[in-house]
Amino acid sequence: MPRGRTENVLTTTYDDGALTRSPDELIVEEPLSIRLDDVLVATTMRTPGHDFELASGFCFTDGLLAGAPVLSCRYCGTGSAVDTEFNVVSVETGGRAPVPTPRLTITTSSCGLCGSTSLDELADRLAPLAAANSIPLEVLAGMPESVRAEQGLFDATGAVHAAAAFDVAGVPLLVREDVGRHNAVDKVVGRLLLDDRLPARDLGLYVSGRASFELVQKAWAAGFSALVAVSAPTSLAVATARRANLTLAGFVRGGRMNVYSPAQVDR
Amino acid sequence: MPRGRTENVLTTTYDDGALTRSPDELIVEEPLSIRLDDVLVATTMRTPGHDFELASGFCFTDGLLAGAPVLSCRYCGTGSAVDTEFNVVSVETGGRAPVPTPRLTITTSSCGLCGSTSLDELADRLAPLAAANSIPLEVLAGMPESVRAEQGLFDATGAVHAAAAFDVAGVPLLVREDVGRHNAVDKVVGRLLLDDRLPARDLGLYVSGRASFELVQKAWAAGFSALVAVSAPTSLAVATARRANLTLAGFVRGGRMNVYSPAQVDR
Repeated sequence: MPRGRTENVLTTTYDDGALTRSPDELIVEEPLSIRLDDVLVATTMRTPGHDFELASGFCFTDGLLAGAPVLSCRYCGTGSAVDTEFNVVSVETGGRAPVPTPRLTITTSSCGLCGSTSLDELADRLAPLAAANSIPLEVLAGMPESVRAEQGLFDATGAVHAAAAFDVAGVPLLVREDVGRHNAVDKVVGRLLLDDRLPARDLGLYVSGRASFELVQKAWAAGFSALVAVSAPTSLAVATARRANLTLAGFVRGGRMNVYSPAQVDR
Repeated sequence: MPRGRTENVLTTTYDDGALTRSPDELIVEEPLSIRLDDVLVATTMRTPGHDFELASGFCFTDGLLAGAPVLSCRYCGTGSAVDTEFNVVSVETGGRAPVPTPRLTITTSSCGLCGSTSLDELADRLAPLAAANSIPLEVLAGMPESVRAEQGLFDATGAVHAAAAFDVAGVPLLVREDVGRHNAVDKVVGRLLLDDRLPARDLGLYVSGRASFELVQKAWAAGFSALVAVSAPTSLAVATARRANLTLAGFVRGGRMNVYSPAQVDR
């Protein structure tokens, strides 16, 4: 029984004093607990669908797999391997992934936790991308229009983010929508992982919102050549992208955009 | 040394093939680790500033205080009680709050985790709001304009959310901006908590983005009368608001809005 991704709710519209009642299509938000070899590693509020992609993509981009292969995904309880039911997914590596540590209970080793520390930790785990971005700037600038036609849930609800992997010609290879930006990106990365298409060296990643540190981290981990965000990046996102040798474009609208990384852009 | 909340980064603007270079003001994003009586309970990426509000607000809205008073907040390491430095804050209750459990390591008790389960757990912890919302609908519909003038970081960066507490006349009592929506709300709730102004029975809460389950949870925990969101709610947010007896308005723009909770609205 597939869960719905939208739900109709009867609502009251207030318009300058007048009230009318009508159904409104809302995006569904449900918790998904992600286990790695049966250890709970995260619970995220997500839009149901593509749960195995989300779970495996999360484990990958968060560095939990550490190179271990995903042997299978299944829903807890039923053991169902059909990606349509329940809200607890276990990603199975047959014990090849390191045993996840309950990170919330680790006291930080220093009180100097800061953006630079986070960036340094990331750089310890991930090597800078070797190749420069080969996707033309005009392709990056055109991505919002290219992805727009596939944002069906956004059309219906106005409340959902999209992420897409695209090729050097700007053709979207897959588009995922989710109430959470991070989830949409994890679904894209998870699909590529399950299809054995990582690192995504010749591909770009598009996100419909802002570019945060965590989104840049995910793009870096998956080896994308460029990250294109419709809205603004944070300063830490820019610093991280420059460290990663990842092209980062933001405020991409109407054929115009800001390129934040690399620091020097030549045609 | 106060940390900056924005940072200028030299960027390249691409406009239909032409490249120009200029500085762009970006929002700062830094990790904050929150400890409760010296046990790490969360690390969040936030915009620096109002960290004690954020830490105490998070502990409160997440149910970690369980009625215990916040005796003090301090930065780890220095013991500094000045809210301007470092990224590890400890909220002190003198051991009156329950010892935080590392929730990531708790296996869920059932595989039936779902939105209803989350809502039931919340209802176990929080009683429905006793009084009906007394803030007029026309006041709720006008909140975006009322808060707009105080969104200075948004004006500078275009990349930051706002949350505000407002009274029955629609006057914003305090406005907080943060790269994360949840953080902005926690900062507002934390300020009210530290000022001994909770529950916020006669106040409304405004958020500049969407209304998720977690934001409704925070509004409910703080006892707000109404939650006003500029953008869409999720279906679980609506179900939660109705259970809480919390008025929930979304898509609030240009004097028009949708009222999702209560299910029946009369003038």
